[in-house]
Amino acid sequence: MVTGLVGRDLISINDFTNEEVECLFHLADEMRLALRQGKQLELCRGRDMATLFYEPSTRTRGSFERAMHKLGGNVVSFAEAKTTSSAAKGETIADTVRVLEHYADIIVIRHPWAGAAQVAADYARVPVINAGDGSHEHPTQTLCDLYTLRKEKGRIKGLTVVLWGDLKHGRTVHSLVYALVRFGAQPLCCTEPDLYPPEALVERLRTDYDHVLKKIEPRDLSSLIGRGDTDALYIAPFRPFQLRLPDLGLSVPIGDTTGWSKAKKVDAVYVTRLQRERMRTMDNGQAKYLALNDGFWEEIKRKKRTLIMHPLPRVDELPYQIDTYPRSVYFEQAANGVPIRMALTALLLGAREMEVSKTRKGTLLYEKAENRCKAAFGVECSNQSCVSRQESERRYIVSAFNILKREPLVVSCIYCDSEAYPQYFASSEWHQGTLENKRYYPAHSFMKARIRAENLVLFGSEEEAQRRGFHPSKHVAQGA
Amino acid sequence: MVTGLVGRDLISINDFTNEEVECLFHLADEMRLALRQGKQLELCRGRDMATLFYEPSTRTRGSFERAMHKLGGNVVSFAEAKTTSSAAKGETIADTVRVLEHYADIIVIRHPWAGAAQVAADYARVPVINAGDGSHEHPTQTLCDLYTLRKEKGRIKGLTVVLWGDLKHGRTVHSLVYALVRFGAQPLCCTEPDLYPPEALVERLRTDYDHVLKKIEPRDLSSLIGRGDTDALYIAPFRPFQLRLPDLGLSVPIGDTTGWSKAKKVDAVYVTRLQRERMRTMDNGQAKYLALNDGFWEEIKRKKRTLIMHPLPRVDELPYQIDTYPRSVYFEQAANGVPIRMALTALLLGAREMEVSKTRKGTLLYEKAENRCKAAFGVECSNQSCVSRQESERRYIVSAFNILKREPLVVSCIYCDSEAYPQYFASSEWHQGTLENKRYYPAHSFMKARIRAENLVLFGSEEEAQRRGFHPSKHVAQGA
Amino acid sequence: MVTGLVGRDLISINDFTNEEVECLFHLADEMRLALRQGKQLELCRGRDMATLFYEPSTRTRGSFERAMHKLGGNVVSFAEAKTTSSAAKGETIADTVRVLEHYADIIVIRHPWAGAAQVAADYARVPVINAGDGSHEHPTQTLCDLYTLRKEKGRIKGLTVVLWGDLKHGRTVHSLVYALVRFGAQPLCCTEPDLYPPEALVERLRTDYDHVLKKIEPRDLSSLIGRGDTDALYIAPFRPFQLRLPDLGLSVPIGDTTGWSKAKKVDAVYVTRLQRERMRTMDNGQAKYLALNDGFWEEIKRKKRTLIMHPLPRVDELPYQIDTYPRSVYFEQAANGVPIRMALTALLLGAREMEVSKTRKGTLLYEKAENRCKAAFGVECSNQSCVSRQESERRYIVSAFNILKREPLVVSCIYCDSEAYPQYFASSEWHQGTLENKRYYPAHSFMKARIRAENLVLFGSEEEAQRRGFHPSKHVAQGA
Repeated sequence: MVTGLVGRDLISINDFTNEEVECLFHLADEMRLALRQGKQLELCRGRDMATLFYEPSTRTRGSFERAMHKLGGNVVSFAEAKTTSSAAKGETIADTVRVLEHYADIIVIRHPWAGAAQVAADYARVPVINAGDGSHEHPTQTLCDLYTLRKEKGRIKGLTVVLWGDLKHGRTVHSLVYALVRFGAQPLCCTEPDLYPPEALVERLRTDYDHVLKKIEPRDLSSLIGRGDTDALYIAPFRPFQLRLPDLGLSVPIGDTTGWSKAKKVDAVYVTRLQRERMRTMDNGQAKYLALNDGFWEEIKRKKRTLIMHPLPRVDELPYQIDTYPRSVYFEQAANGVPIRMALTALLLGAREMEVSKTRKGTLLYEKAENRCKAAFGVECSNQSCVSRQESERRYIVSAFNILKREPLVVSCIYCDSEAYPQYFASSEWHQGTLENKRYYPAHSFMKARIRAENLVLFGSEEEAQRRGFHPSKHVAQGA
Repeated sequence: MVTGLVGRDLISINDFTNEEVECLFHLADEMRLALRQGKQLELCRGRDMATLFYEPSTRTRGSFERAMHKLGGNVVSFAEAKTTSSAAKGETIADTVRVLEHYADIIVIRHPWAGAAQVAADYARVPVINAGDGSHEHPTQTLCDLYTLRKEKGRIKGLTVVLWGDLKHGRTVHSLVYALVRFGAQPLCCTEPDLYPPEALVERLRTDYDHVLKKIEPRDLSSLIGRGDTDALYIAPFRPFQLRLPDLGLSVPIGDTTGWSKAKKVDAVYVTRLQRERMRTMDNGQAKYLALNDGFWEEIKRKKRTLIMHPLPRVDELPYQIDTYPRSVYFEQAANGVPIRMALTALLLGAREMEVSKTRKGTLLYEKAENRCKAAFGVECSNQSCVSRQESERRYIVSAFNILKREPLVVSCIYCDSEAYPQYFASSEWHQGTLENKRYYPAHSFMKARIRAENLVLFGSEEEAQRRGFHPSKHVAQGA
Repeated sequence: MVTGLVGRDLISINDFTNEEVECLFHLADEMRLALRQGKQLELCRGRDMATLFYEPSTRTRGSFERAMHKLGGNVVSFAEAKTTSSAAKGETIADTVRVLEHYADIIVIRHPWAGAAQVAADYARVPVINAGDGSHEHPTQTLCDLYTLRKEKGRIKGLTVVLWGDLKHGRTVHSLVYALVRFGAQPLCCTEPDLYPPEALVERLRTDYDHVLKKIEPRDLSSLIGRGDTDALYIAPFRPFQLRLPDLGLSVPIGDTTGWSKAKKVDAVYVTRLQRERMRTMDNGQAKYLALNDGFWEEIKRKKRTLIMHPLPRVDELPYQIDTYPRSVYFEQAANGVPIRMALTALLLGAREMEVSKTRKGTLLYEKAENRCKAAFGVECSNQSCVSRQESERRYIVSAFNILKREPLVVSCIYCDSEAYPQYFASSEWHQGTLENKRYYPAHSFMKARIRAENLVLFGSEEEAQRRGFHPSKHVAQGA
């Protein structure tokens, strides 16, 4: 019944149960007190943290290194780790972490490819913390957001949090929305209709928590704030630093994988897309922020109730005049990165233990293990930035998927959670040794309802199916 | 009466009084002894130093990190911090340091923009040390220079120091000249007429210390050395690594702000300027160093009295054959960086206290607070590399100026000390509530003599004045 | 009779005697145990290591920094030190290390120029460790290779080690071959005829150890493995990360000196060369690895005897399916980097002492001191990447050579060991004060046999000889 987080990885916020997150916050409180008292801890004396950053970072790397120092440990810093897509010029993620596990007791990785942290965790024998893998996950950011809310408001449960800005692109915002519901808060999505969270997230909240995600019109925000109904206003960057490229329908050259240059590139293209295709719902990209004009900020200040939150770095969506408002807590969010990361590091390294229930069933959101398909041939993740689609990593990574939806058949990549659409499927146990019974079916066939995930074999094409010795079922012939 | 340096910033060498510098040197002696004895101190145990370097550095960053380690503290190193001029791609200096103040107990910053360290100090709640802000100031270099002189010669007062090379461009040389006079040494400027220190510095030395800056001809240097009248020869780099662009009359693209590429660029242009406009005084850039030929160095060696100093890195102005001369102390200057920076860090962090007079009046060189103008509208610092002129920083930085001279009206930027030339002015207190009495005057008007700095409002144009509700005085009409 | 390694440098594996290497391994065993037990040592408390990396590195820098941390010391890290070839933009190696010796107690340097580590050692007063100087030497890699062999097999003496891949280019492989013979192992070279080790290495092994280097045909490898005659198979990268440019007959622009871009460049050209000139011996670059097909790996696995070694990073020559084979020890090689570098650092810093014989004669391989020529004028090292040929370093570096062979006259560069071919020579002692007797001789003259190395003066041309006051001997006239 009693276990800790020792030896575990943190790739997604959903890797931890609510109870584990609460324990982590409890320890973070303790760390925060130690920081205030100027105490130097010795919990991680003689331990090394490797910070492996393939993208530039001030905030995240800085707070991890500070955290490790305050725990009495050391840091081996790779602030400018480079990544290349070609086999000849670099080393695969798997090889890099299998070397680094001998040089550090814990690895913190930031990488432009979605799913890269999962690959690192699969291959390293030491704990791996995801410090941002493309636009996939950035769980310690979400932990800081939740912890700040809890610290400022005394609780998370029951809070009303308005999320403002681009809620469609960037999965870190999705993680936050999901986590808020998970911890019993009420997120209100306030943005233009074309920037609302994607239907998949809305659907998932309904399924998992019976929660209907509420939306409000930007023009109603002032009155909402005015009524004192809002505990916090979370400003999502309009142009998130880390974009998920496929969401934008962009095709970027594979060689161009460093986050920085990617971000630059995308910025430019993004604006173009807005101008061309979104013209009907707004005049230009800035239009969406018009509701947050000077008058709005003055009203916020007068009410003195609503927290203003932002993940930073900010661009233009958050004016400097609001910095002095006492409930602007975005720098506190950044400050809380240190105690949160101290607590996390101490727990994963086993330097501190905590009692948590062993069972993770029911609390863990994606019960991935139960939905894992047996095998997939020629099925590709739809995310071009996914680690499973990089030439260099394909030398050892095997694509694998969880069932997301059976009708129509949609699966999700185990590395980056993006969708994939198999064209054909089969069961691995129906043929009972008779080769003639090895049949494959088209994706739309109702037969898939009869196959358990653990027996489901997916194919991207008939050729892939036939190469593995499967024969077309009559459904295939009918479909043709 | 008793206070320390705890919590203070070091942006300019002039931020410290002579007494404070002396105390610092005293503590540096102690640190030097500890280093020699191989002692590991624990004064800064549990403290972190952030080294935030937007430009490459071996010497300065290396000695700060070594210093912090020997004090028992840790370093969070941002060796390759990048800066961008566009809002979309980066974070402002103010935001960066307001985050970093939670990740470190002291911030050391190097930045290509003049005034950037002042902005950092304005926004960070922890001490900030300027490790070079463009070509503005590099105070710890000046401290090393003075400390080396004092250590090698037993004192600074009364020493005769010849400064050789380009004394016109590069404010670090100006800081040194000023500091030498301040500490009672006699600087002798030895260079071509067009590379003498600027008139403003000469004027300031006369005003502040009644000191007439002496110049000597390069051809007289040998005989001066020969007579044994020289305590030290300070070689200023001919092509300083960090150039102040406006001095060269260059217009660089705003996007090109990294020091490294800037330096490269400027090198090329600089040579061009020399060839075109300085042709009359010398054949080419190298000509100025002809006086320091092999014969000269032989004579120096024979005399065994004159220290040879250089801030490093050297280029061609300092031949390798002089390295073995026992009074070549440029590597000692670099070595002294460690005890100086240990002492400085310990004092600013309050890890060591010292008794210094509270009063800073009269000793501090620029009594800026007394000369600060009330407000300025549309007045721009003349230095294109000034932090106040960068698009990204203008979102929060308000230009502000001190009066430098009243006739003609010249003000200096509070960030980078460069000149600015307001076109119009007004008093903030003359109108006594009557809008009709809010009058503005042209810069040449004698009326400015009647306004105290703290009431002086400056305008860059009539439009700016009128937008703030001021009306033209008759002087304006007369001037028109 | 008793001394340690304190204060020594490690530039080449041949700087240490066999006895010293054995002592180092002994201490590494101790360090390895401490690592396993999670012990934090305090041997280097208060000491700083500077890691000065002019080329990117994960493995080498990471393991050095981990090693220093586990010894209780600190690191000042220059992970992205840049190098430039022009005097105006950089600092020479000599100047850099003479500054850094004040900021660190030991310097670890990686540099793209062959011989750069030797220059650093010549100028720094603290120990210097070569972490790779171009394609010249990488001695700590060789130490890890030997240590892994010894640990896995219990000894080095008498082992049979097959070296597979490109054994011609890349001196690190040459170092390994030489070291294997030195420690009594039997290297077998298994590759295409045009990728065998160079004749100079073969010759040297014969001279120094009376060892005839054996070669085997790739097609015979399977049967050799099958007979159980092989203790280890060492896979040398086909396209080594660090190439020695002159071996490829390439002319790279001098400005392009960073290893990364160089490697990229060379990769491309290399392939071209293969296609054009090596077409007769193989179809393309990959052909050479065909022998190591899936069947081969299956057989290796079945035998369970042969270690599989590789210096990493791998490209395509080592398939991922062999990773799970229990005798694949390439990640162990990387892991052993930590105890080896801990032992090395502790010994060079004098934090641990060991008793070794004082005499180095006979054990040290290149008795360079005995073969050092008195002087050389206008003689240039043949290696374009040699530190002695870089414009910036020529301001202080004096080319110098050891005699490699007298007939024909070939000398080797003291920095990078590459060949040079003087055109003329003279003796510094024959003229006995009479200017007329100062004669120079053509390189082919038998007279050189009569001159001891320490008196031998070399010239690149007649002009150089005459400028130094030498007159043509009659041999010169005859030769003309």
